[in-house]
Amino acid sequence: MKIFAYGIRNDEIPYVEAWERTNPEIEVGYTQELLDPETAKLAAGADAAVVYQQLDYTRETLSALAAVGVTNLSLRNVGTDNIDFDAAREFNFNVSNVPVYSPNAIAEHAAIQVAALLSQAKVMENKIQSHDLRWEPTIRREVRDQVVGVVGTGHIGRVFMNIMKGFGAKVIAYDVFRNPELEAAGVYVDTLEELLEQSDIISLHVPHIPGTNDHMIDADAIAHMKDDAVLVNVSRGALVDTDAVIAALDSGKLYGFVIDTYENEVGVFNADWRDTEFPDARLLNLINRENVYVTPHTAFYTTHAVREMVHQSFDAAVAFANGGEKEGNVVKY
Amino acid sequence: MKIFAYGIRNDEIPYVEAWERTNPEIEVGYTQELLDPETAKLAAGADAAVVYQQLDYTRETLSALAAVGVTNLSLRNVGTDNIDFDAAREFNFNVSNVPVYSPNAIAEHAAIQVAALLSQAKVMENKIQSHDLRWEPTIRREVRDQVVGVVGTGHIGRVFMNIMKGFGAKVIAYDVFRNPELEAAGVYVDTLEELLEQSDIISLHVPHIPGTNDHMIDADAIAHMKDDAVLVNVSRGALVDTDAVIAALDSGKLYGFVIDTYENEVGVFNADWRDTEFPDARLLNLINRENVYVTPHTAFYTTHAVREMVHQSFDAAVAFANGGEKEGNVVKY
Ligand SMILES: NC(=O)c1ccc[n+]([C@@H]2O[C@H](COP(=O)([O-])OP(=O)(O)OC[C@H]3O[C@@H](n4cnc5c(N)ncnc54)[C@H](O)[C@@H]3O)[C@@H](O)[C@H]2O)c1
Ligand SMILES: NC(=O)c1ccc[n+]([C@@H]2O[C@H](COP(=O)([O-])OP(=O)(O)OC[C@H]3O[C@@H](n4cnc5c(N)ncnc54)[C@H](O)[C@@H]3O)[C@@H](O)[C@H]2O)c1
Repeated sequence: MKIFAYGIRNDEIPYVEAWERTNPEIEVGYTQELLDPETAKLAAGADAAVVYQQLDYTRETLSALAAVGVTNLSLRNVGTDNIDFDAAREFNFNVSNVPVYSPNAIAEHAAIQVAALLSQAKVMENKIQSHDLRWEPTIRREVRDQVVGVVGTGHIGRVFMNIMKGFGAKVIAYDVFRNPELEAAGVYVDTLEELLEQSDIISLHVPHIPGTNDHMIDADAIAHMKDDAVLVNVSRGALVDTDAVIAALDSGKLYGFVIDTYENEVGVFNADWRDTEFPDARLLNLINRENVYVTPHTAFYTTHAVREMVHQSFDAAVAFANGGEKEGNVVKY
Repeated sequence: MKIFAYGIRNDEIPYVEAWERTNPEIEVGYTQELLDPETAKLAAGADAAVVYQQLDYTRETLSALAAVGVTNLSLRNVGTDNIDFDAAREFNFNVSNVPVYSPNAIAEHAAIQVAALLSQAKVMENKIQSHDLRWEPTIRREVRDQVVGVVGTGHIGRVFMNIMKGFGAKVIAYDVFRNPELEAAGVYVDTLEELLEQSDIISLHVPHIPGTNDHMIDADAIAHMKDDAVLVNVSRGALVDTDAVIAALDSGKLYGFVIDTYENEVGVFNADWRDTEFPDARLLNLINRENVYVTPHTAFYTTHAVREMVHQSFDAAVAFANGGEKEGNVVKY
């Protein structure tokens, strides 16, 4: 059996090689090139193709792949928006993806960033880099002293709660569907408003559902928060009204803001703006603040997550090649 | 009853005022000036003086304080090296200090710094500040995937362990005196060497005992570590052979280094070097590395710790003034 993988990055190679070692009977080929109508022929002779790219999987691409006999397509990521499913149907493609790779990656990132913010870590690091080694007045707030309000107690929210509890913080939560174990532990409040009123840290771990929870944190929500609260959004940019947050940072109502996602991130994040004008003045305003921690949608990017993405996608490819499917990874369309 | 406090910093004022509110029957006076033979008279009429300073409590100072009728001295910090105890004895001084204010302050700082280092947070922040928003190749190591080796399972070490467990990490420990609860949980290894060989993160939480554990982490100890280990020292600079660590950072043996304490920190930390030559080239070498996280002995500096230092010292002063003493805060000399 042969599996051929496209778009393999340097940081994925160790996990591809580890997978090869535990699956010595399977031949593995890979390239750093993306899958397109031209590169499709590199997969000739393979039983499945493994892929990960922003580039669209067009009818032309899928047809070129089918032409060299490959109709099993295993995505190393979760998103399938860039697949032409009509074409996939026509050529009888089996498609898999990796919906859960590491909730801890996201939860840890949120926890570390907010804890560092409470530590005034950027302020202290900037002082140190300027050779000012005085500690005053850069005082830290201990995580254990915070009431942490978690909005959304799914995979990621629950891991985040455990980390905060390890610090000794008090954790409360709000969710439209309650987890029975957390319910029994008495962590839930009844409304988002209650959570906002009681929390020192508010961390969002809900999906964005357009038309339902756009700007669920707006000026009105912020008005319900305690003074010196910290807002964390590593979920989806659209959940937060960025202008309202900036106003609350300016007024001193909010102590800080942590984001890995931003309303207008598409086309701005994961690009290099060093030699050209920065494309988003509002984002730059945030980046330049010592009490705002911005990362460009990198929360998922850990060695653990990358290993899962590689291994699950390769396993799913093998399952397709064997005429079966890997539970939890099949894309029904 | 009247208590007079010296050297009150701005960040202490809220906690002095909070203490006044809960002790309305006691008159409180304070100054930001330090206690010396000149300022001693500011305490005239008080029943106790509360202090915190690097400046020596000399015979002249203590005699001047006794001359205005004050022989109760409550330190807001732990260290008593700068007290002339012969003079204190002569003038019949009662002395108190604050030996435990917040183990969490130190433990949280160690945890946050090492977690940020594993996240390559400095690398990513420097990229972002230069307007490079690409995530590759700045990949993070999840805390949960690390074996965390804790050397010293006292007040601070135990809090550090709980935080790391909250992340889901595997924790092992070494101590010359074992905590029965941790012993039952099976976390101890038998030798420091075993701990070094098994750990991805090694964090020191032992006192420095001159002649006993100077440079307990030296080139030989580092040679026993796993490749890509991270060393954390927020305890005492003398525990670590800094040159050996720099060699291991240069060779790539160590992934990173977190310090809040440094062998030659006295006279360098808690000072402003912006307008003059930096006094320690080796420390500067560390500060300039993206995989080394230096703070200038600020781990203790949290709002929680400052509140404890103020409240415990004021309570101890009242106990002395009432002819008694506050348990846990008395300095026997
Ligand atoms: N930054 C990143 O790299 C990254 C990566 C993966 C996921 N995410 C984000 O994290 C979010 C959470 O992921 P997860 O795996 O924990 O999802 P999940 O489905 O396991 O949990 C989501 C929870 O939110 C609850 N919920 C939904 N709408 C709600 C609302 N309006 N109010 C309150 N609760 C609501 C659900 O009941 C569920 O318990 C995802 O939706 C995604 O937006 C971000
Ligand atoms: N960075 C800061 O601001 C800051 C502030 C306070 C304390 N500290 C440092 O943290 C250290 C730990 O503080 P703590 O309150 O947890 O102390 P502690 O006395 O509660 O615990 C120390 C532990 O270390 C063990 N130990 C002693 N020598 C050892 C050795 N050679 N090998 C293995 N174990 C040994 C002891 O048995 C004890 O369990 C202090 O000694 C101090 O150096 C740093």
